[in-house]
Amino acid sequence: MPATYPADSVGLVEPQRAVFPAPLALECGRTLSGFELVYETYGTLNAAASNAVLVCHALSGTHHAAGYHSPDDRKPGWWEACIGPGKPLDTDRFFVVCCNNLGGCHGSTGPTSTNPQTGEPYGPDFPMVTVRDWVASQARLADHLGIERWAAVVGGSLGGMQALQWAMDLPDRIAHAVAIAAAPRLSAQNIAFNEVARQAIRSDPEFHDGRYQSRGVIPRRGLMLARMLGHITYLSEAAMREKFGRELRRGKDDYDFHYEVEFEVESYLRYQGESFVERFDANTYLLMTKALDYFDPAAAHGGSLARALASATARFLVLSFTSDWRFPPSRSREIVRALLETYKPVTYGEIEADHGHDAFLMPVPQYLQVFRTYMQRVAAEVAA
Amino acid sequence: MPATYPADSVGLVEPQRAVFPAPLALECGRTLSGFELVYETYGTLNAAASNAVLVCHALSGTHHAAGYHSPDDRKPGWWEACIGPGKPLDTDRFFVVCCNNLGGCHGSTGPTSTNPQTGEPYGPDFPMVTVRDWVASQARLADHLGIERWAAVVGGSLGGMQALQWAMDLPDRIAHAVAIAAAPRLSAQNIAFNEVARQAIRSDPEFHDGRYQSRGVIPRRGLMLARMLGHITYLSEAAMREKFGRELRRGKDDYDFHYEVEFEVESYLRYQGESFVERFDANTYLLMTKALDYFDPAAAHGGSLARALASATARFLVLSFTSDWRFPPSRSREIVRALLETYKPVTYGEIEADHGHDAFLMPVPQYLQVFRTYMQRVAAEVAA
Repeated sequence: MPATYPADSVGLVEPQRAVFPAPLALECGRTLSGFELVYETYGTLNAAASNAVLVCHALSGTHHAAGYHSPDDRKPGWWEACIGPGKPLDTDRFFVVCCNNLGGCHGSTGPTSTNPQTGEPYGPDFPMVTVRDWVASQARLADHLGIERWAAVVGGSLGGMQALQWAMDLPDRIAHAVAIAAAPRLSAQNIAFNEVARQAIRSDPEFHDGRYQSRGVIPRRGLMLARMLGHITYLSEAAMREKFGRELRRGKDDYDFHYEVEFEVESYLRYQGESFVERFDANTYLLMTKALDYFDPAAAHGGSLARALASATARFLVLSFTSDWRFPPSRSREIVRALLETYKPVTYGEIEADHGHDAFLMPVPQYLQVFRTYMQRVAAEVAA
Repeated sequence: MPATYPADSVGLVEPQRAVFPAPLALECGRTLSGFELVYETYGTLNAAASNAVLVCHALSGTHHAAGYHSPDDRKPGWWEACIGPGKPLDTDRFFVVCCNNLGGCHGSTGPTSTNPQTGEPYGPDFPMVTVRDWVASQARLADHLGIERWAAVVGGSLGGMQALQWAMDLPDRIAHAVAIAAAPRLSAQNIAFNEVARQAIRSDPEFHDGRYQSRGVIPRRGLMLARMLGHITYLSEAAMREKFGRELRRGKDDYDFHYEVEFEVESYLRYQGESFVERFDANTYLLMTKALDYFDPAAAHGGSLARALASATARFLVLSFTSDWRFPPSRSREIVRALLETYKPVTYGEIEADHGHDAFLMPVPQYLQVFRTYMQRVAAEVAA
């Protein structure tokens, strides 16, 4: 509970809401008659509107990327490590924007919103959204904010995929694309993990074909399992070993021979699962995992990522982490290779870090340094 | 449906049953008043009873390791690749024994058996069994078969752990221990995956605290999820890529934008999950994962695996597979290092194979060759 906020934090922030009444045609073939996005901004947009950076969130992220919502907040936004005065996304120089994605459950139009046609929550009737749809919806937000062109679009994991999609779909509106711990498309193993998570949710008897909200219940067990599983893939084996090892809980020094929590790692996972249920919607989780599965820009170009990226004019920063086994460095190198094949300017950094996929959220010194240096160059261009 | 069996198969086999009326004190502190083991044998025990090999099964294995139960069988036993005339466990030379482990659900005493004290199925009241308990129960089977000393105790994965435990607990009764794709204890990540599987089963409303059998139901969804998750960890990323890639199902060439099976890998996993439910018991699955979690022979020796192995007099063959990420080669090397530290004779092979953990079940040529060569030496000793 910071009475005052840390000097390198953006401090107190307030979410805003933008309403887009025009229809949005989605990749799945359906059309949303209109939508709303909840977003936050940090820093000040300059007169030329040339210093704006869009931060795209990952699977379970929100618009609350930095700062605090109240002095009582125990935790700052999810990317506090990277957003703030003097940080890589330096709010003294950039105007940073982060929105809750379409289909989300933190205020933007999504499955928990009221379907204007029925007066009921959309639930499972909310259309499937894709990374391309997110880019299109974020472009409306850019219009709304008077931003013709982003100095950079930046994201980790699924957020990095959005940065790539921006570079492909709207090349005139993005100067730099920063894709951190991302992949050009999911592997069969990635899809398999997502499928188990979805089955966990959809087979929960409280799921009710996605209409749990109108029944006043939550597919709690399924969502908890999905999150527990997700967490395993976010952490490296080494990080888990360091964090928990085979430590038994509560200073116990022998086995109980029962099924209650015995190992610290079990306790951690159950806690993560239980707390997730309180703040995330199951239908949104399903949507987000499908958006991940569907992301495959090369598919429309005969499998060539280079051809998919041919339209891009942005410069690229690609970063990966050595212990990330969800989207390992080899996946980032696929992106780099495709960019080099078509002579795109790309900077690539492979960061030595033990934290696994989650490293992109953490204050890993080498990571912050590379990211900061790159963004300082972007800031210099903006100022020039 | 082989009208005749392949020449290198043991052909038609029949399970047998051994009854052990004497009480068995278990590591958890409880005692089974008696128990039964179902087992199969292949080959012929020689007059000196010196050519017997015990095969220990893994998490979801059974006593049916080789051959066919009927001419209509579509599939042979689970280790057909390694057991038969001319195969590594050459049934022309060895008398091979494989039992369903105590706590299993394929005929040996376990949660689905009738508790003599209540006349009801044990269900959740079946005591927790450990790798040490399995060794003790298998020793009774050895007595029953007139086998004083195994020429070798052999197993993959959890089966390899049993081979190690045999070498530590009953050094006089085992000449060779063969541990394939095993680990000296689970990592935090391994435990984490097991815990998600257990939670999937235990949170299934049809689980009824383990008393589903008396209610005539099965925690189908949970068991299916557990198996789907297991399968991901058994296959390597590369194997999944080769087998499924991002292929869509049924020759479709575009996304459906729904939650039914779209990718081949989803179809495969669901099939694996669904068929598992028909042949495996949920309480047994829980027991088996706990036996894995608890296995940690070094713990009683201040964390020193070398000291744990000090009592062993067997010679060791340790094999691992390059793409196994469940129990990777580094884990096998921990075993090898501990053996070398105490000057135990050990042969180690790291097999180049793309199949992941499942490689130990497959006819990988280099694997079969190394395994066969080692076992030929064992056979020569037996004959000498």
